[in-house]
Amino acid sequence: MTAQTPSFSAAEYSRRLAKVRTAMAAQELDLLFVEDPSNMHWMTGYDGWSFYVHQGVIVLPDADPIWWGRRQDANGAFRTVWMADERVHFYADNYVQSTERHPMQDLARLIRDTVGDKARIGLELENYYFSAKAYLTLREDLPGADLQDATALVNRARGVKSAEEIAFMRKAARISEKIIDGLVERARPGLPKNELVAEAYGDAIRGADGEWGDYPAIVPLMPTGKDASAPHLTWDGRPLPAQTATFFEISGCFRRYHAPLCRTVFLGTPPDDLKRAEAALVEGLEAGLDAARAGNRACDIAEALAAPLTRAGIDRAARCGYPVGLSYPPDWGERTISLRSEDQSVLEPGMTFHFMPGLWMDDWGLEITETILIRESGAAECLCDRPRRMFVKD
Amino acid sequence: MTAQTPSFSAAEYSRRLAKVRTAMAAQELDLLFVEDPSNMHWMTGYDGWSFYVHQGVIVLPDADPIWWGRRQDANGAFRTVWMADERVHFYADNYVQSTERHPMQDLARLIRDTVGDKARIGLELENYYFSAKAYLTLREDLPGADLQDATALVNRARGVKSAEEIAFMRKAARISEKIIDGLVERARPGLPKNELVAEAYGDAIRGADGEWGDYPAIVPLMPTGKDASAPHLTWDGRPLPAQTATFFEISGCFRRYHAPLCRTVFLGTPPDDLKRAEAALVEGLEAGLDAARAGNRACDIAEALAAPLTRAGIDRAARCGYPVGLSYPPDWGERTISLRSEDQSVLEPGMTFHFMPGLWMDDWGLEITETILIRESGAAECLCDRPRRMFVKD
Repeated sequence: MTAQTPSFSAAEYSRRLAKVRTAMAAQELDLLFVEDPSNMHWMTGYDGWSFYVHQGVIVLPDADPIWWGRRQDANGAFRTVWMADERVHFYADNYVQSTERHPMQDLARLIRDTVGDKARIGLELENYYFSAKAYLTLREDLPGADLQDATALVNRARGVKSAEEIAFMRKAARISEKIIDGLVERARPGLPKNELVAEAYGDAIRGADGEWGDYPAIVPLMPTGKDASAPHLTWDGRPLPAQTATFFEISGCFRRYHAPLCRTVFLGTPPDDLKRAEAALVEGLEAGLDAARAGNRACDIAEALAAPLTRAGIDRAARCGYPVGLSYPPDWGERTISLRSEDQSVLEPGMTFHFMPGLWMDDWGLEITETILIRESGAAECLCDRPRRMFVKD
Repeated sequence: MTAQTPSFSAAEYSRRLAKVRTAMAAQELDLLFVEDPSNMHWMTGYDGWSFYVHQGVIVLPDADPIWWGRRQDANGAFRTVWMADERVHFYADNYVQSTERHPMQDLARLIRDTVGDKARIGLELENYYFSAKAYLTLREDLPGADLQDATALVNRARGVKSAEEIAFMRKAARISEKIIDGLVERARPGLPKNELVAEAYGDAIRGADGEWGDYPAIVPLMPTGKDASAPHLTWDGRPLPAQTATFFEISGCFRRYHAPLCRTVFLGTPPDDLKRAEAALVEGLEAGLDAARAGNRACDIAEALAAPLTRAGIDRAARCGYPVGLSYPPDWGERTISLRSEDQSVLEPGMTFHFMPGLWMDDWGLEITETILIRESGAAECLCDRPRRMFVKD
């Protein structure tokens, strides 16, 4: 069936599908349609940069999933998914970005053929790529169906990682360490930012420990000085200035699994306010790691972090982390739990988070972060092993 | 206002806004909400990898646009948009990926404050990032508003490129040429695919002719042999095998502007069927370039291409191109015109397309493509200047 074997064992895919079906049963769904490419990959192994057109996986209570997408991408499905070829369905190319027809008209036909026209159907209403028009088209073409919001149903099933997944994330972590090592070593005043990014990409894709690197779901973010007040600016060709901080927000990626890691480099002698912020942040990270235990809640991590920051006069308004693992652009987060004071989600062994308390102040930014694994007992394990501090290069 | 100046002149932004307002007037819109990051950038200069959370630009008939997004990303807006700081509005961080509240509740308030609760509002219903839930939330929170589909309103305004934009695309084309040159030169049997990709990224981001390279909206696609039957597979760490074709689908990117270019390398002696396909494809490309003239239609290009392919027994079902220019992931296309037999859109001087007649057959794939500019008169200009053929390395 496929030359390019799926990443995981049959038993692993079977466990995943069982989790999803349990959640479907709780919502009494006859059918779940999943357009999120990370969820598609997690359940079927499908891999390809084809999520810019409509595609998805149909999950059923009692039969193998159906991959559905554009005709030319069915070739990619034949080569990457674990299901038999007859479980791959496709729509004609003239549905793509047409003003006359919508791919969801084809999907509606397939859904009717599969479960009839009165089924209870779960849809990922809050998701990249499943557009408002996709929803409206399905609603029009499935007038008898009961369309239910199943946002994050699969994402939540992905929360606790298997041993196979954790092994992938450890490989991603080796790549993350290599990228950060290279950035810290190469950063110097006068070096054009894009040159530094080019080297970081080289490290990311060459990989580490003999394992090849995949593309991360977010490009390297590394703003400098006042630009680092904004967390999501990308690079340009200006040289790195002396006497400024640059943070590096990156992730290695191994077969779509991530282990984000952020560190900050100061070129020169850091001012006292930055050093005080660093000390408070590191103290907050240590406290948060200690609070990141099975049985505690997401908010416990956020509150442990906040205490030393508040003492240092730093008021962080943003959440300080989110689950990570398998992902496609535009985000490496799983979009379920948020590490913030209002989130009461209970931490379970095998959950993985990017503990990400970035500081974005008026004139500078500071990021020191960890990808963490919740253990059976004790404080969280950091998947990367690099000094938890701001690197100063005088 | 901003240290990081927008990419274009004030006059250019003013012309763009005038085009959008004309289209808004034709639909009698009081307000247009634009979530597409490419459309946001085109109108305001906003740049940042923040499109994984809800954000957008509010366009009004008679006042400057309003940037709206997450609190921490407002810092990025202050540093990249041309509007005054008071035109930047943000929502609190606990709206992000929350199960209790949705950012569109905040946007609905801002819309009511701006145009009242009975306005006629245009929305990009078919777009990445504007989710079904976003639409349903706005509809619930703006019960008196008349919500209209304004899909591709801005995308269509972007179709004819200005001289400033074409200058950017020419810079992107120099980077595309450099990437392809490097790939063709480095490809050899035994080279791990990810090593080749790492070098391609280095070329893309280092840039060309002294200009820095930005990240392309699609990662390099370069499947080999039977994998090349699927257009959108990405790389892995396997060595390039002898006696196979690999196609390279890449684009240089200069300040978010693209000029995609695809070429194919055969390592060994190509079989006769591949050589015949190459000859027919090149003949079709030449015929298509000649048909790509102002006043002709999109379908004329597709039909000119199809004739020699059909004579060679090749039936291409897919469209053979799309407009390109400014873009963010997941696509470098503009999602308006498609080069296909049913598309009657008239070609205008200044339009730019990726003329992309990829062949994805059962056992191999072949891509030889051009980014083209429709001229005032005569056949289209190719922005890249590289031999239009399959490269054979014996």
